[in-house]
Amino acid sequence: MVNIQTNSIAWETLLDLAAYDGPRHVRLELAVRDAVASGRLPAGAALPPSRLLAASLGVSRWVVTEVYGRLTAEGILDARTGSATRVAASVGITAPRPASAPAAPLRRPRFDLVPGVPDLRHAPRALWLRAMTETLAETPDAELFRLDGEVPAARAAVAAYLSRSRFARADASSVVVTHGATDGMRRIARTLRGLGHAALLVEDPSWARMRQVAAAEGLASVPVPVDEHGVDVPAMVAASTRTGARAALVTPAHQFPVGAALSPERREGLLAWARAVDGVVVEDDYDAEFRYDRRPIGALQAMAPDRVVLVGSLSKTASPAFGVGWLVLPTWLQGTIRDAGAATPSTLDQLALARFLTTGGLDRHLRAARTRYRRRREALLAELGRALPECPVSGIAAGLHVVLDLPPGVRAADVVRGGEQHDLGLSDIRRYRVSPDAPAPERLVLGYGDLADPLVAEAVRLLAQVVRNAGRGL
Amino acid sequence: MVNIQTNSIAWETLLDLAAYDGPRHVRLELAVRDAVASGRLPAGAALPPSRLLAASLGVSRWVVTEVYGRLTAEGILDARTGSATRVAASVGITAPRPASAPAAPLRRPRFDLVPGVPDLRHAPRALWLRAMTETLAETPDAELFRLDGEVPAARAAVAAYLSRSRFARADASSVVVTHGATDGMRRIARTLRGLGHAALLVEDPSWARMRQVAAAEGLASVPVPVDEHGVDVPAMVAASTRTGARAALVTPAHQFPVGAALSPERREGLLAWARAVDGVVVEDDYDAEFRYDRRPIGALQAMAPDRVVLVGSLSKTASPAFGVGWLVLPTWLQGTIRDAGAATPSTLDQLALARFLTTGGLDRHLRAARTRYRRRREALLAELGRALPECPVSGIAAGLHVVLDLPPGVRAADVVRGGEQHDLGLSDIRRYRVSPDAPAPERLVLGYGDLADPLVAEAVRLLAQVVRNAGRGL
Repeated sequence: MVNIQTNSIAWETLLDLAAYDGPRHVRLELAVRDAVASGRLPAGAALPPSRLLAASLGVSRWVVTEVYGRLTAEGILDARTGSATRVAASVGITAPRPASAPAAPLRRPRFDLVPGVPDLRHAPRALWLRAMTETLAETPDAELFRLDGEVPAARAAVAAYLSRSRFARADASSVVVTHGATDGMRRIARTLRGLGHAALLVEDPSWARMRQVAAAEGLASVPVPVDEHGVDVPAMVAASTRTGARAALVTPAHQFPVGAALSPERREGLLAWARAVDGVVVEDDYDAEFRYDRRPIGALQAMAPDRVVLVGSLSKTASPAFGVGWLVLPTWLQGTIRDAGAATPSTLDQLALARFLTTGGLDRHLRAARTRYRRRREALLAELGRALPECPVSGIAAGLHVVLDLPPGVRAADVVRGGEQHDLGLSDIRRYRVSPDAPAPERLVLGYGDLADPLVAEAVRLLAQVVRNAGRGL
Repeated sequence: MVNIQTNSIAWETLLDLAAYDGPRHVRLELAVRDAVASGRLPAGAALPPSRLLAASLGVSRWVVTEVYGRLTAEGILDARTGSATRVAASVGITAPRPASAPAAPLRRPRFDLVPGVPDLRHAPRALWLRAMTETLAETPDAELFRLDGEVPAARAAVAAYLSRSRFARADASSVVVTHGATDGMRRIARTLRGLGHAALLVEDPSWARMRQVAAAEGLASVPVPVDEHGVDVPAMVAASTRTGARAALVTPAHQFPVGAALSPERREGLLAWARAVDGVVVEDDYDAEFRYDRRPIGALQAMAPDRVVLVGSLSKTASPAFGVGWLVLPTWLQGTIRDAGAATPSTLDQLALARFLTTGGLDRHLRAARTRYRRRREALLAELGRALPECPVSGIAAGLHVVLDLPPGVRAADVVRGGEQHDLGLSDIRRYRVSPDAPAPERLVLGYGDLADPLVAEAVRLLAQVVRNAGRGL
């Protein structure tokens, strides 16, 4: 019991009702709660009899008994018969924690050549808002109450979109709506782990986040080299034989980051391998909607819907903020993945996604985005040809990035560091290696998704400057 | 190799360009894809030389070579030099799957007395849309691109809301935004399992979904009885000693379904137990915002923020369609739960949640909802008193449900079945028992969250009728 001299306390100061809004009993309740929470009234402290406190504070006695009763019911005060009302011994005072440091405002580099970022200035905010507005205006009440997270209209809309845009073999039953590609990968990995898989063949280099979530779910990454025809399928078969891995994560339409399209022979070889080992191919279709020299190559999934899981999202095509993506699954995986216990996007988001797809919102956005990215890519290549003619640029005319080979003697790490001085965001291709310390050619992956069009020339001028400085050891 | 008589095929019928839109090369590509996908052109089938097909279809030869080239690059066709272009042997034809059966339209019973459903007719659609509209209009571009799913503004807004409405001890660092209470429970359960917990003490009866997701993550349910003062804490301590369980899931503000508030002595006993066994209390605060006879009782979490995880959501207060909820976590659990690998709501939804809370959208909605539910509850109780005076009604003046004792000889299961005849949705309290087959008093849990106000009298009249019929063995 704390020996607190209640007589000497200025109760009207400790419980300052003027600091609160509302009726008196509410203000007194808040004042007592704050005094207890802050430790000014510690566990065991006695409160004055209600008559005395009422007089000190200039309130009716009812106000005090009401508040004492309420806080006693809650266990904050303790009012044993025949003794003073006290702060309960069980109240665990924690020193007020420091408020979280205010989050640094998010920002992108002014000259943003970092890959993996779409054009943030042109996110289809208005088209998405329209889909959301119509959804909120028109969805019947009962549709807004779903215990099961799956919204059939969203699954059907995704299936229709992928059938026409990616020639996928999809129907509503094969689609799972996810939060995005990473979430999709996590769910596949968890499911494969549950089925006994322990390893995942991955392209090297590749987008690190996808293999990291698989690794976090227990699938070890088995690296397979990549060349200008995409992933080296004979090497993959050999790695599968060596390790027993029967699952592969690939980017057939546009290898990240090398920028190759998987050759027809390799597509065939990959599927033959998957059939031979009773395996699974995870097709990360991350930017296949953007192809500038021809219509996009169809999804590998169409050739073997029983072996290929197609992973996609709106993150690169529209905005990562919408938090929606999808999986297209072989029949035999559909039940298992649904049982793996992961939250789906909200009913509202799934209904908005369905509208965004079926009313042509995404198509409209993609038409504009393709034109914008194609022009930006052309401008970037033209500037690179002028400013760095000695540096080969590679990658098919697709997606949101190219690969730049640096001149002999120039280290990519130095160039990246040099760029930071000018607010020029760059990426060493080593970032995407499974083992970043292995010897590798000196290359940059230049993303132009978020590069502002008026800054293309200036970005390349700065890049050429830091390349030359790095070459001179500066 | 399939022996297909290409000469005898009417190519202009098989590849009917009139069935497609767009330029000729696009239409031909789609026609070939469909013919392959449907099996009309099986693996190995030879296609005519480009000159002949061009003549059959009345298109230029370029159109045909373009399409052949494209589909060959994709591995759908196979064009070895010196031989006919054929459908690739690797094309896996799947018989077209039957389209998913159209989903039955979701509906609620006309007389909806099923608990767990808020007022769907009064979901705050407009207030949420306003939050979403402002978010889309005002969020800077860079904020829409987050690789990390956590949005600091949302965590801070939830902490502020819970501090003032639930007197919780929360700051931004202790809050995790979830998809809802079930998602929150799944994440806690996964985390506790990772920390070595194998069992969860649960109230019996209780909301089944919460303990089911915990069980799916590997935490076995250990039932603890409930009476009119809430969960039986001495029995919980005994069950903990017997089984070694050190985690408990409770509903202190308003026990579901019994409707009790946990007594001050038991609140204290529960926390003393948690401290003694180094345990964790999960406080499911599912409907605490609705209290009609006094201000809501404060969260148990405030008394022991180092021992209690607070679980809440907008599902009962606003709408389950918004797909947002929260956890407030002890410091020592914060890192662990973030590493457990679960998707967060989208950046957009989290930013909208922050606005919905900080601009008073939820408060406005709650003020109206409290009045509406209080009146509906009073009307329901009055009608029950008139129509079924022999049936005691229990539960504190809170939340969205009451408990009705049935007259001697009347079985709850018969009443529920009788209700179905009249589109009257009812719930036997056995549904919420951990072992539904154990002997239990004959009681109904009457939810009035979604009961339409004009139908209260008629719903009770029908209820009284089915109770009397069940009593007569009808």
